[in-house]
Amino acid sequence: MLKEDHSFLIQPIGYVRSILKARHEAPRQSFEGAPEAWLEINDEFIEGLGGVSEGQEAIVLTWLHQARRDILKVHPRGDTNSELSGIFSTRSPDRPNPIGLHRVKIQQIESGGRLRVQALEALDGTPIIDIKVVLGEVNDS
Amino acid sequence: MLKEDHSFLIQPIGYVRSILKARHEAPRQSFEGAPEAWLEINDEFIEGLGGVSEGQEAIVLTWLHQARRDILKVHPRGDTNSELSGIFSTRSPDRPNPIGLHRVKIQQIESGGRLRVQALEALDGTPIIDIKVVLGEVNDS
Repeated sequence: MLKEDHSFLIQPIGYVRSILKARHEAPRQSFEGAPEAWLEINDEFIEGLGGVSEGQEAIVLTWLHQARRDILKVHPRGDTNSELSGIFSTRSPDRPNPIGLHRVKIQQIESGGRLRVQALEALDGTPIIDIKVVLGEVNDS
Repeated sequence: MLKEDHSFLIQPIGYVRSILKARHEAPRQSFEGAPEAWLEINDEFIEGLGGVSEGQEAIVLTWLHQARRDILKVHPRGDTNSELSGIFSTRSPDRPNPIGLHRVKIQQIESGGRLRVQALEALDGTPIIDIKVVLGEVNDS
């Protein structure tokens, strides 16, 4: 394979505030009982929230900062009785670039860049790296 | 807002090979006529493809390397007649952390880490940063 030698620097745009404090407390998927949470956007990125409104759905991208980046196979869902799978066939947070995708509904927007969202399975302090509102078509880019 | 001073390094796991060579040729959404493309995964990450199979759906995350990272407002869809919107209420590739999300179907897997996928609106040479198979539930993390 052609290998081009580049890497890229991600800068958090904000942080998750949640009652989930430790990885073992977090559900594996948002539909498995994740609590509501706040997205706190850093001052310098608040201008980018213009047009985001309460009631909208969005995909929040996070940097799963507690993940391991050095493994390529895992037991799916941490079940050591199941066979090892390649990381790209799982949704494990442990992966070379540990980016989380979280589909949320924006419940409330406060001044100062604070957004309350439903059902977010990310830990308190997780860096937020992007917010993409969901347009008409589901699952588009 | 609390600001924690961290940034994170993303390492491409591979590259897109596509007939789309320039940004003005690319459709804005995959459902707007994007061509099929190949994902070429770098040798050191091929082990992570174990369990990925033809016919599966996946979300491919890319680094939109031609994007501008220094703007927070855009005209949606590049239409200068429309009002400026905050970047997080749009799907513009120009954003602080220009990560693309592409829902694809895996059509073919070749040895050496080559995956042919349907309808990918990313340019040739776009770095791939993650592949997440789609599990039972749509839009989960």
